[in-house]
Amino acid sequence: MDAKEITLDKLDAKRFIEDEAREIGKAVGSGLAVNALSGGVDSSTVTLLGHMALGGRLKTYFIDNGIMRDGEPQKVAAIFGKLGVKVEVVDARKQFFDALKGITGPEEKREAITQTFYRDVFGRLVRESGAKHLLQGTILTDVDETVAGIKRQHNVFMQLGIDPEKAFGYRILEPLVRLRKPAVREVAKALGLPKEVYARPPFPGPALAARVIGEVTPERVEVVRKATAIVEEELAGSKAFQYMAILHGDRVTGMRGGRREFGLQVEVRCWDSSDARVASPTRLPFEKLEGLAGRITGEVPGVVSVTYNITKKPPSTIEAV
Amino acid sequence: MDAKEITLDKLDAKRFIEDEAREIGKAVGSGLAVNALSGGVDSSTVTLLGHMALGGRLKTYFIDNGIMRDGEPQKVAAIFGKLGVKVEVVDARKQFFDALKGITGPEEKREAITQTFYRDVFGRLVRESGAKHLLQGTILTDVDETVAGIKRQHNVFMQLGIDPEKAFGYRILEPLVRLRKPAVREVAKALGLPKEVYARPPFPGPALAARVIGEVTPERVEVVRKATAIVEEELAGSKAFQYMAILHGDRVTGMRGGRREFGLQVEVRCWDSSDARVASPTRLPFEKLEGLAGRITGEVPGVVSVTYNITKKPPSTIEAV
Repeated sequence: MDAKEITLDKLDAKRFIEDEAREIGKAVGSGLAVNALSGGVDSSTVTLLGHMALGGRLKTYFIDNGIMRDGEPQKVAAIFGKLGVKVEVVDARKQFFDALKGITGPEEKREAITQTFYRDVFGRLVRESGAKHLLQGTILTDVDETVAGIKRQHNVFMQLGIDPEKAFGYRILEPLVRLRKPAVREVAKALGLPKEVYARPPFPGPALAARVIGEVTPERVEVVRKATAIVEEELAGSKAFQYMAILHGDRVTGMRGGRREFGLQVEVRCWDSSDARVASPTRLPFEKLEGLAGRITGEVPGVVSVTYNITKKPPSTIEAV
Repeated sequence: MDAKEITLDKLDAKRFIEDEAREIGKAVGSGLAVNALSGGVDSSTVTLLGHMALGGRLKTYFIDNGIMRDGEPQKVAAIFGKLGVKVEVVDARKQFFDALKGITGPEEKREAITQTFYRDVFGRLVRESGAKHLLQGTILTDVDETVAGIKRQHNVFMQLGIDPEKAFGYRILEPLVRLRKPAVREVAKALGLPKEVYARPPFPGPALAARVIGEVTPERVEVVRKATAIVEEELAGSKAFQYMAILHGDRVTGMRGGRREFGLQVEVRCWDSSDARVASPTRLPFEKLEGLAGRITGEVPGVVSVTYNITKKPPSTIEAV
């Protein structure tokens, strides 16, 4: 795989789409391909590229792992339904929560999610489908960060020197691996994806599990899901690169109805960045910050404290887990 | 004890000082009194009031519990030395850290500090001094919050219906119990205390132990001590009511030298308030917030993330522990 970057200014989106669709067609031949759609801009772009190249020979799964945002599976299936792409929603919530039980370390969480996804859920689907090719939305920033040891991405086995053919029994195609996020958005737009997809802020692979510090349980995911919905609603109009709510493991003292309550703390992060390599906290007006805190403590049961990240990346990372 | 409030506008500081000094003199008679000075405005005011009433018959101890701010014992002793008040510094660091070992709950921490302070350290000093009277800097807000169950103050046994004579063998005098913070500052000023004392932001009884979420060890106190020194230096010029650094128990992902680091998170809180009953996060300029985060992550080993509190009290409390 040629990892030479195609920068935004050098990108000819139309030509890129033609080239990559042709490459996909050539690689898959008369066989079948599968891919997993998360609803993010990367996997959405790959889904449409694959659909263009292979039509009905591409089988697209949306794995509901229980750690998605509010209404996500339905929303994504509806968007692609309108584009004529059939998406099969797979309910794997129990499998993921079982795998996450008792795990608190971020590496172990990512590993549990990766293993459950590839080996248990998606791996089985791929093996049963008879497809030998897997389309994947890896982008250049994922590769950089994995190589640098900053992040353990779950979708860059090849770059890590792991042979996916031996490890999981299929071959991975990564048509976006020479692009960074702004170029992917351009391609997504050119493919006819709606704005809510191509302009969508990035969302991590481990989904809301990356937004829970400590153990990931259905109850704790529900807390951060509610907080996430509020943050996304409140900051949808901002020009920020990415924004998120994080549920802390720590308990802090608060008060309700004049009485002491040992409650939950949620951290809000909102980033200015062009490609996630370096980032700064967005200078949101304090009215907005206090509004966010007011809504989260008012609407999400158990939360008594909300903080806002003020650290740049580096030394912070975009996500906390 | 008459708990009727003397509001700032009704306060005649000079007369209050004369009245209270006379009351102290009457209560103590020809005996001895002791008090513990923490360096905060409340205990400093009581120390000077007591000194005025009793002269050499008041014995003032400064208990170094190991959870003080940087250079605090020396600083406080020097201030009172200049005012002609002798303060005996007692090194009780080991006793406090032993008592705090393995404890993570905020109530249990406060209890361990209270018990170590009253029963083990100060209680022993009082018993050995032969004094029957203890001067204490309880203010009206402490009483309110304790009665409301918001806070478990360590200095309001009487209000909780605990007889200190039976519990600890001495009698407590609380000359400031009808005042709130602004009135105490006025009295402190009228007593001739320097501005660094009377204008000093409040600091909690359990000191830096209240600024550490989770276990309080000498190492973790050292982290929050360094962060506290930075926050106090950076925000000294602000008009804020109170500001603080809090070390979280959670670990978050960060990066240093291009590599992933699972590090510490510090939360900064800075409050606008008149008396701590209700409070709002100070709307600090983002340049200042980013400067704080830059200094804390740059100068305090292990810290990769800094957040800023954006929640009002209520539902937050001033302190996190």
